[in-house]
Amino acid sequence: MKPCAIVRASGYTGRELLSCLQRHPRLRATVVMTARAGAQPEPPVFPGDPTIDALDLARLQAVDGVFLCTPHGAASEIARRALAAGKKVVDLSADFRLRDPALYQRTYGSPHPAPELLARAVYGLTEHARTTVQDAELVANPGCYPTSILLPLLPLLQQGLLDPAAPIVADSKSGVSGAGKAPSDRVHFGAVHENFLAYGVGNHRHTPEIHQQAGTSRIVFTPHLLPAFRGMLSTIYVTPAAGLAASGNAAAALRSCLAEAYAHEPFVRVYAQGQPELRCVQQTNQCHIAVTQSGPLVVLTSAIDNLQKGAAGQALQNMNLMLGLPEGDGLS
Amino acid sequence: MKPCAIVRASGYTGRELLSCLQRHPRLRATVVMTARAGAQPEPPVFPGDPTIDALDLARLQAVDGVFLCTPHGAASEIARRALAAGKKVVDLSADFRLRDPALYQRTYGSPHPAPELLARAVYGLTEHARTTVQDAELVANPGCYPTSILLPLLPLLQQGLLDPAAPIVADSKSGVSGAGKAPSDRVHFGAVHENFLAYGVGNHRHTPEIHQQAGTSRIVFTPHLLPAFRGMLSTIYVTPAAGLAASGNAAAALRSCLAEAYAHEPFVRVYAQGQPELRCVQQTNQCHIAVTQSGPLVVLTSAIDNLQKGAAGQALQNMNLMLGLPEGDGLS
Amino acid sequence: MKPCAIVRASGYTGRELLSCLQRHPRLRATVVMTARAGAQPEPPVFPGDPTIDALDLARLQAVDGVFLCTPHGAASEIARRALAAGKKVVDLSADFRLRDPALYQRTYGSPHPAPELLARAVYGLTEHARTTVQDAELVANPGCYPTSILLPLLPLLQQGLLDPAAPIVADSKSGVSGAGKAPSDRVHFGAVHENFLAYGVGNHRHTPEIHQQAGTSRIVFTPHLLPAFRGMLSTIYVTPAAGLAASGNAAAALRSCLAEAYAHEPFVRVYAQGQPELRCVQQTNQCHIAVTQSGPLVVLTSAIDNLQKGAAGQALQNMNLMLGLPEGDGLS
Amino acid sequence: MKPCAIVRASGYTGRELLSCLQRHPRLRATVVMTARAGAQPEPPVFPGDPTIDALDLARLQAVDGVFLCTPHGAASEIARRALAAGKKVVDLSADFRLRDPALYQRTYGSPHPAPELLARAVYGLTEHARTTVQDAELVANPGCYPTSILLPLLPLLQQGLLDPAAPIVADSKSGVSGAGKAPSDRVHFGAVHENFLAYGVGNHRHTPEIHQQAGTSRIVFTPHLLPAFRGMLSTIYVTPAAGLAASGNAAAALRSCLAEAYAHEPFVRVYAQGQPELRCVQQTNQCHIAVTQSGPLVVLTSAIDNLQKGAAGQALQNMNLMLGLPEGDGLS
Repeated sequence: MKPCAIVRASGYTGRELLSCLQRHPRLRATVVMTARAGAQPEPPVFPGDPTIDALDLARLQAVDGVFLCTPHGAASEIARRALAAGKKVVDLSADFRLRDPALYQRTYGSPHPAPELLARAVYGLTEHARTTVQDAELVANPGCYPTSILLPLLPLLQQGLLDPAAPIVADSKSGVSGAGKAPSDRVHFGAVHENFLAYGVGNHRHTPEIHQQAGTSRIVFTPHLLPAFRGMLSTIYVTPAAGLAASGNAAAALRSCLAEAYAHEPFVRVYAQGQPELRCVQQTNQCHIAVTQSGPLVVLTSAIDNLQKGAAGQALQNMNLMLGLPEGDGLS
Repeated sequence: MKPCAIVRASGYTGRELLSCLQRHPRLRATVVMTARAGAQPEPPVFPGDPTIDALDLARLQAVDGVFLCTPHGAASEIARRALAAGKKVVDLSADFRLRDPALYQRTYGSPHPAPELLARAVYGLTEHARTTVQDAELVANPGCYPTSILLPLLPLLQQGLLDPAAPIVADSKSGVSGAGKAPSDRVHFGAVHENFLAYGVGNHRHTPEIHQQAGTSRIVFTPHLLPAFRGMLSTIYVTPAAGLAASGNAAAALRSCLAEAYAHEPFVRVYAQGQPELRCVQQTNQCHIAVTQSGPLVVLTSAIDNLQKGAAGQALQNMNLMLGLPEGDGLS
Repeated sequence: MKPCAIVRASGYTGRELLSCLQRHPRLRATVVMTARAGAQPEPPVFPGDPTIDALDLARLQAVDGVFLCTPHGAASEIARRALAAGKKVVDLSADFRLRDPALYQRTYGSPHPAPELLARAVYGLTEHARTTVQDAELVANPGCYPTSILLPLLPLLQQGLLDPAAPIVADSKSGVSGAGKAPSDRVHFGAVHENFLAYGVGNHRHTPEIHQQAGTSRIVFTPHLLPAFRGMLSTIYVTPAAGLAASGNAAAALRSCLAEAYAHEPFVRVYAQGQPELRCVQQTNQCHIAVTQSGPLVVLTSAIDNLQKGAAGQALQNMNLMLGLPEGDGLS
Repeated sequence: MKPCAIVRASGYTGRELLSCLQRHPRLRATVVMTARAGAQPEPPVFPGDPTIDALDLARLQAVDGVFLCTPHGAASEIARRALAAGKKVVDLSADFRLRDPALYQRTYGSPHPAPELLARAVYGLTEHARTTVQDAELVANPGCYPTSILLPLLPLLQQGLLDPAAPIVADSKSGVSGAGKAPSDRVHFGAVHENFLAYGVGNHRHTPEIHQQAGTSRIVFTPHLLPAFRGMLSTIYVTPAAGLAASGNAAAALRSCLAEAYAHEPFVRVYAQGQPELRCVQQTNQCHIAVTQSGPLVVLTSAIDNLQKGAAGQALQNMNLMLGLPEGDGLS
């Protein structure tokens, strides 16, 4: 059993990682800490979970890999120390997702805390970065919305199957766990239950990340908050390239492209028919994708569990690769 | 108090109408029937509600107005009889929404049951048909999805503010009450709670209705099922006309157009800022609309209560107009 | 229209009062304030609601009645000032529910803030205190749990139909709105949705209030938190008096007693058969009660809307009485 | 890997079993059937699940163990055939839970379909029947409500810690999955969401099972339907034996008794403090129990996942024992 650490294990993604690692045959969370030194140890979130100790960077010496589940801004310093000690680091925050520190500052409102590390970070959308992740020392784990949008889009963009001039609409809906565990008016039961709304319209922080990884800024992204706890569905509207549109069978072509791209991927499933539902991917590391013609556009629907494939699950895929373990270990 | 009838008062929209009429100062539901002659009377849905009698068309003689809450196909015959008796009819089913009986047949899979009445039917999107509704004898009450999409779109289309070549994406999310009260696998609590999915992608029956009323077939409509009971939010992506887009202030122009169009409408509110939420419109006859720039597109978000403005509330607006009563009576 | 004031209109009960008063024919909320002087005015909770001004006691001069929706402890000083100005006061907090200031201190952990007013306060369980409420200047509005428990129990206790030596079990389940609007770990969507738990077992603050009003301390009360927003159901297990138990028809006798006690009450309904459900009383001021034999005990089930009959609705019943208005005005 | 069969794998408990077996290291579901011969094969419930074949009793020859997830009445004939072929059978229906066929007939309304097998059946409340289950050929898997009530009660009854004359109140609340997967008015989303009610008051079918296993008929059981999918909490009110009550420390004594009884049980946890919540036991085979004094009574709160410890999980515990496998295999 290789030892690893989880920093800020008390949040939703930290707890999800703990849960995955409890059934991992080769990796164990031996160091489970909060994000702040000198903090009171936190009691276990669930009966049977470990107590969460105060942050103590010296303890990272004893592990092979480090998962950072801190808010953005707080991860960089810990990452710096862990990398200096030769540890493998998967950062689930936004600190290393954007390559351009100026863009980071515009997006997150403060200077990048560790610009010198940016060049060493690999963007870990695993299915599209497997070989670089294997050799990486620092992986920026993708955001949940970008994961659900990039997985269906990237193969189509790479194969030139989309009209390069047309906007792409990505209309995403997420369960509340994506907003984190801190209490607020917005996540009060009374504000979520039997409610639904769009938020961050035109200015959500995941937009630059999506644009960077897709290599285009013509993606219009709108997130919404579902009255559900976990799971995310993105409905993506694309315009087929001119030739395809004329063929009258654009959706079939796009579906074939995706089916082929992910034919050997255990965590991505392209539907021949039907629509993905949250309940089919909840508590799994799966991404399920359907492709359907709708008038002049093709509709891609993509479902993931935001806490698994959108966070802890993909982080574990990446860590497994970095440590030379089977990629699917600990993932159902 | 004028007397009116509700046919099929046991469903969600029938019950909603009953509830509105219980606080209506000038209209009373004196005849409350099922959709089938010879059926057993049904017990009240809620304590205090009336018993629902078997259908008896002769009883329509005693009322001034008739609300038809039957499934499509069943409304036409009752409408025919009520019209012959000189009654005002609001049909909440789809029977009189499509002007072309051939399109009806393609959409609903059977010949139109009363093509001779189509020319007498007025499409009752109240704010856009007030004067014709006032004189109508038969009103086709709009579908819930079309209502939530047409209210924000129509003024923009009429004013020529949208690029006539670009597709319009209407991504709609509805509470389960839109699927009706009949039990099925799809509306089982276990299939809805903590779940979310798109359905009818590319082929939902409300699409022809939306196209007909918008006067364009370039609207791509995708409905989704929310884990909520009532309420509907449509997120609509439009491309501003060329001049507006160049001005750099397209969203403001579109917002002004809508604010002006609905300035004196008690049931439509255009937000200066913020996003509409389901909880702001539930149990009301309101439509709340926000307009936001997002990259090259403008995002219209539109929230209604599918059982009120999307069904019973708008039906009551229409009936009030037809009977010469104040339009807002019975509506909060 | 008589003018009235709501102090702390931003919480769930304050907002519910606002909503009731919007349809009240004879009473209008002309003063709508927060609970703190010098506070920033708060924006309307819902579009169309009034702005909530900072507390200004001088403005109470202009009204006839005052609703206090503050937390316990904060109501007393405002009540004192309003009473001194000759206003009618309904206090929805716990400040005037317990007659004994020592018991208040043991229960709420601080000395009673206005013991001199206790003798002037009437406990406003309206159906059981109508005549004293009519003449009262200060009404202590009952807690939501006590309301749901006392309404089915009081007539049985008064008629001597229960075994005076046997414990009474009151197992209550409440929607989250009872916990108030302030964000906390406990009311986070993730802590409530798809969850359920008992809390305050053996020591909930409503227990002394229940014991005082029932005139017995043998009631064992356990509250639970439902994954729902509004509504409360209490399941109460009573032992019939010896003679009744021997008769073999105890439930029928208890049901008759309740049916008779509430025969002319518009807001209490005793079922001849069936079980009350939350959805039958939500958004109403009703209390629905069923009485069922179960082995040696009789089970009373009692459903109310905790924000209406359990708070704002009953408060309005009381204020209507105090101001000489029809008791049901503003209540559906 | 030993082979086993699931009959009626399409329901909630069958699907839960499938899910457990997918992570079982020594047992595999090689035969997955519906409950009816000649039925159409059913498509997988979730992507990745097996197709569910029509019932074919001959295929039971190829397995070591058989799980019956059929409705009551249908299990007996299949059990008879499987037993004749020497297979181990765990029946999750009610067919073999009641020892007295006359009581079965009174409770389920039809004669017992296989009275000759009743003597061979062991009631499989695993922690209280481990040695007899190990040697059994036929196990009657306990109902979900009885499991949640008997686990906290049995040790207290066996140790004589309860007043033998006092009634015991068992107030239970269950998620909707307990009502099964068949659509009905009662499990419609609109009838469950934001609702709550008691049902089967005084006459639920699990009452005789509880009485039989507890060895007393003084338990008054009331089930309720939660607006949640999975999980069950029972709140149980007991009267301590006279000596204990006088000691003033009855809850502590009862808690010690339970803590000792389950000290070495991996699937039962007795809390030293705090209250069990559904979310702590969902998706696990755990039963969590708290013991709290409340006036003259002691309150036992007991939480399980109705689909796991209340059905499939306990069934797997039993099958593991019957086949000589580690009891916890396949259970987290």
